[in-house]
Amino acid sequence: MSSSCVNNRTPRTYSESGVSLELASVVGQSLSRILDFDDKSIVVGLGGFAGVIEIPGTDLCLAVSADSIGTKTILAAKYGRLPTIGYDLVNHCVDDSICHGASPIVFLDYIGHVDLSAEAISEVVSGVANACRGEGIVLIGGETAQLPGVLRDSVFDLVGFIAGIAHRNRIIDGNGICAGDRIIALPSNGLHTNGYSLARKIFDDDALERQYNGVSVKDMLLAPHTSYRKPVVALTEYITVKGIAHITGGGIRKNLARILPDDVDAVVRKDCVQIPEIFSIIESIGVPENEMYDVFNMGIGMLVVVAKSDITESFDILNKHGAKPADAGTIVKGTGQVSLE
Amino acid sequence: MSSSCVNNRTPRTYSESGVSLELASVVGQSLSRILDFDDKSIVVGLGGFAGVIEIPGTDLCLAVSADSIGTKTILAAKYGRLPTIGYDLVNHCVDDSICHGASPIVFLDYIGHVDLSAEAISEVVSGVANACRGEGIVLIGGETAQLPGVLRDSVFDLVGFIAGIAHRNRIIDGNGICAGDRIIALPSNGLHTNGYSLARKIFDDDALERQYNGVSVKDMLLAPHTSYRKPVVALTEYITVKGIAHITGGGIRKNLARILPDDVDAVVRKDCVQIPEIFSIIESIGVPENEMYDVFNMGIGMLVVVAKSDITESFDILNKHGAKPADAGTIVKGTGQVSLE
Repeated sequence: MSSSCVNNRTPRTYSESGVSLELASVVGQSLSRILDFDDKSIVVGLGGFAGVIEIPGTDLCLAVSADSIGTKTILAAKYGRLPTIGYDLVNHCVDDSICHGASPIVFLDYIGHVDLSAEAISEVVSGVANACRGEGIVLIGGETAQLPGVLRDSVFDLVGFIAGIAHRNRIIDGNGICAGDRIIALPSNGLHTNGYSLARKIFDDDALERQYNGVSVKDMLLAPHTSYRKPVVALTEYITVKGIAHITGGGIRKNLARILPDDVDAVVRKDCVQIPEIFSIIESIGVPENEMYDVFNMGIGMLVVVAKSDITESFDILNKHGAKPADAGTIVKGTGQVSLE
Repeated sequence: MSSSCVNNRTPRTYSESGVSLELASVVGQSLSRILDFDDKSIVVGLGGFAGVIEIPGTDLCLAVSADSIGTKTILAAKYGRLPTIGYDLVNHCVDDSICHGASPIVFLDYIGHVDLSAEAISEVVSGVANACRGEGIVLIGGETAQLPGVLRDSVFDLVGFIAGIAHRNRIIDGNGICAGDRIIALPSNGLHTNGYSLARKIFDDDALERQYNGVSVKDMLLAPHTSYRKPVVALTEYITVKGIAHITGGGIRKNLARILPDDVDAVVRKDCVQIPEIFSIIESIGVPENEMYDVFNMGIGMLVVVAKSDITESFDILNKHGAKPADAGTIVKGTGQVSLE
């Protein structure tokens, strides 16, 4: 990477780019006090990748999740990539939804904007609808809100809501994870939908056009979020999967920690997957390695924990469904921490 | 109303305030083509107040809805009314959810912002959580996204997702509405959560502080959205309710038309409820009456259609649950239109 796109104002951390992980952490602690819903129907509450609640009078659970795809929308608007941004939204939400063993069935989208044209809105929603069809779920409604004074001109916010169904006795929540279990990584194809506030500020317009092995930086950044639904749902049908972590904001450490019991640690090998080139390009500009692993997925989109005895069959199933699994490490006795080596 | 807050730049229509009902209409038509999910599990699709889909293997349906409370958040942020804005969000979504006969069970909130403090976020989410508790639903998660470059400084976007459960044979969708049926209005306490982009631009800071009968304009504007869950759910338990319309953006005409079969019209009496003073204040500034009825709820938060033979008992049940029902008009033969008289 030439230094032409870097100057003293180029942010090297998420915080310098306007996104505070500390704020997110403080808010999270505060919310854990606010959201003290002492309701016996809650199966997975705050901190889960989806909220899971029993459906009264049945042996089923409802798994629900809401997420924004952040400032990746700014790049999509800038380069007219509106049809693919819907795949980012749907696949991000699908991947959250499957972490607890649910099969997603229905989706709603929300677009907040000031000045999008009807055509642009249709392009975004068409992408959302096509992505839903690809995942076998129904886009059953949503909301487009024109909010002068709240949003900025020429950009938009895109939020998704997904609901899925799971059998009560097939919920996956990490509780059964124990020392000796193995961790499987499913590779990402890039940043997915996290870290864009930092990535966008690192690259100026020239740098976004620069090509590496025939692929421009902007194309690397706009690669849609991978859906892991098919391989992961197939795996859960044959194997007792102990835990699944979708690697989003906060990276491998924060997200894998969300499913670990207090008496174990996870040791993850950083080199278990081939890290997409976009990450080394960003790191070469001056983002410290620790920050890279706190902000980005660093090539791992999903981590799955299974018993050691299930590892061979798990690899077979995941390979059969095109997921390219990698042996990412092991669970050891500990205190709920994740270490990278 | 003194003219001190009015000048030539004061918008008189929603369009002049930056919100295009025409854009919304064009987008709606476009979406009806995009969202052609030909799925037999869909019970209520596009155009409903919530999307309703069968839960596989059960006689239950899942009703889901997403909504933003628009630019009322700007007023809430300006006057530090963060704890009550959560009631607006939850009650708006609850009212959408009950339109098709569902009982809401779970809620997710989404906050998009740039620079809210952890305390401000906690205040907003506390309000959402308290409102959920008041409605007997669980706030099971959500998302707070810090989006520099997408949102404006010092404001925030607040979006809610609600999911409820309904028995398949108790879905209310308006299909059974026929000539001779009666329309019952449930009064609103003000703008609820629609029309704020226009209302905010009509009043300057002095005008917002002005008092009418001891209540300031800003307090009238910040009155939280009414929840109709208790009276409406009670009504649906005893009466075969034929249709329910939540009066939001688009006013009485557009929202009641959403549940009318093609072979009937609805005739609604404008003076059936006592119209809150805030509407006459806004109208006195120069917003045309037609525009008032296209943008605001004009004192009616909910319209319920029942058979003529059920009208007395319906009034008894609604009165018993504190809803102050009003005889709003009748269903006649027609073409799916709503007229105000």
